[in-house]
Amino acid sequence: MSEAASTAPTAPVAAAPALATSGLVADPLVEYLLRHADDRLVLGHRLSEWVGHGPILEEDIAIGNIALDLVGQATSLLGLAGAAEGKGRDADALAYFREAIEFRNVQLVELPRGDFAVTMVRQFLFDAYDVLLTEALQGGAHAELAGVMAKAHKEARYHVRHSGEWVVRLGDGTAESHRRAQRALDELWRFTPELFMADDVDRAMQERGVGADLAALRPRWDASVREVLAEAGLTIPSSAFPAKGGRLGRHTEHLGHMLAEMQIVARSHPGASW
Amino acid sequence: MSEAASTAPTAPVAAAPALATSGLVADPLVEYLLRHADDRLVLGHRLSEWVGHGPILEEDIAIGNIALDLVGQATSLLGLAGAAEGKGRDADALAYFREAIEFRNVQLVELPRGDFAVTMVRQFLFDAYDVLLTEALQGGAHAELAGVMAKAHKEARYHVRHSGEWVVRLGDGTAESHRRAQRALDELWRFTPELFMADDVDRAMQERGVGADLAALRPRWDASVREVLAEAGLTIPSSAFPAKGGRLGRHTEHLGHMLAEMQIVARSHPGASW
Repeated sequence: MSEAASTAPTAPVAAAPALATSGLVADPLVEYLLRHADDRLVLGHRLSEWVGHGPILEEDIAIGNIALDLVGQATSLLGLAGAAEGKGRDADALAYFREAIEFRNVQLVELPRGDFAVTMVRQFLFDAYDVLLTEALQGGAHAELAGVMAKAHKEARYHVRHSGEWVVRLGDGTAESHRRAQRALDELWRFTPELFMADDVDRAMQERGVGADLAALRPRWDASVREVLAEAGLTIPSSAFPAKGGRLGRHTEHLGHMLAEMQIVARSHPGASW
Repeated sequence: MSEAASTAPTAPVAAAPALATSGLVADPLVEYLLRHADDRLVLGHRLSEWVGHGPILEEDIAIGNIALDLVGQATSLLGLAGAAEGKGRDADALAYFREAIEFRNVQLVELPRGDFAVTMVRQFLFDAYDVLLTEALQGGAHAELAGVMAKAHKEARYHVRHSGEWVVRLGDGTAESHRRAQRALDELWRFTPELFMADDVDRAMQERGVGADLAALRPRWDASVREVLAEAGLTIPSSAFPAKGGRLGRHTEHLGHMLAEMQIVARSHPGASW
């Protein structure tokens, strides 16, 4: 089942359409923590698929470090989610023993790593959002979440610089690298609106002073992304129906495949430490 | 071809048998740098095979960080080797465009990652050596090598603490974890003497004040390893013929398989940055 491919036309994302939240866990805090944890866990795993496969040792190491930053953030956030949930599930239980439909990440991060251009354009689109999100959340009323996000913000500032430089290097590089970067942008762009779709969970968390105002982040993201893409000589595709549903557990088929690989060791030896 | 399986009986390693070095590159410095680079590159790659496969997020991150440390050290050392060689090969060229027979790592590090016990026991056996080696080399007469090793020593001190704690935890854990840790030690032990086999290259580098006195490191390694293994309740196997040959490019079949995977991206797109 490809949710991404079958997504029906929806209203323009700028209007921030409400998402139905019925059927989600009762506590919006748990939901909120899972969403931001899962974005990081899934993207970190996609990045880690590059580790050890070159073709540039320095870049292998850089990507590996970014992957570990994201998985580290995810671990902290999953720990908070498990504590808030109060059902005795720790970070490992939440990472390795949930089904795809229980994952709350945006679809953008679950797409296959693709070629290096897809990986880096995706990373930049996410990082440009993440640096703003973490900045907002580090001042929130939930002390532990704010602490995780303060650390994550420092990391995100490095990440977005790194991925932004690569986007310029690819877009403004050879004809082949430009072609690939443009193709990546064409494929990925319609997955970006979901990052800013606010629903009842977001509104509840914002009212509590814990969450971010996604609508306020959107124009800042637009401006910074457009500036880098312009420098890279890349063109934002004009018309594409935005993908959505990840926040509610509706995912592309790619997530299931990724989780199968990510979870097999833990599920083969439940309760064992190895 | 399994060099490991077919290794003929040799003299006890304590006697530090000389290795024939004919056919190696002319400059012992290049050879020396490649040896210590390749140990790290190969072991780092083996560790990175765990990343993203759990079953413990925190440990995934720890192993990933250790892998990145080792690959980072390898990158620096390969860069020095390429410069010393003077043929215009950089670190990437040396990592991705050499055949298995040109690799100079000990066989210990190329063995498959195995289960978690194999990974951690192997890591501890190497780390206990590496912390001594880097300590010795950080004071050497080759400024750049000494600098890389000074940084590596700080990292190795963390690595050996981490892997040593795991060896104790596994050996002194459940019946099953003990069984696996002992089996890992039984399999790996005969690959450890190669770490201390000195040959003309080692002697030349030692005479120049650049290299380490492996014979002096051996008893210190023995003492620290035996202390941890005793605490873990693990028994050193009594009789096994030491494996050797890696320093001269004779490897188990496992290295070739690993390199095929590690090098495919770089070789598929030679000259491309992605």
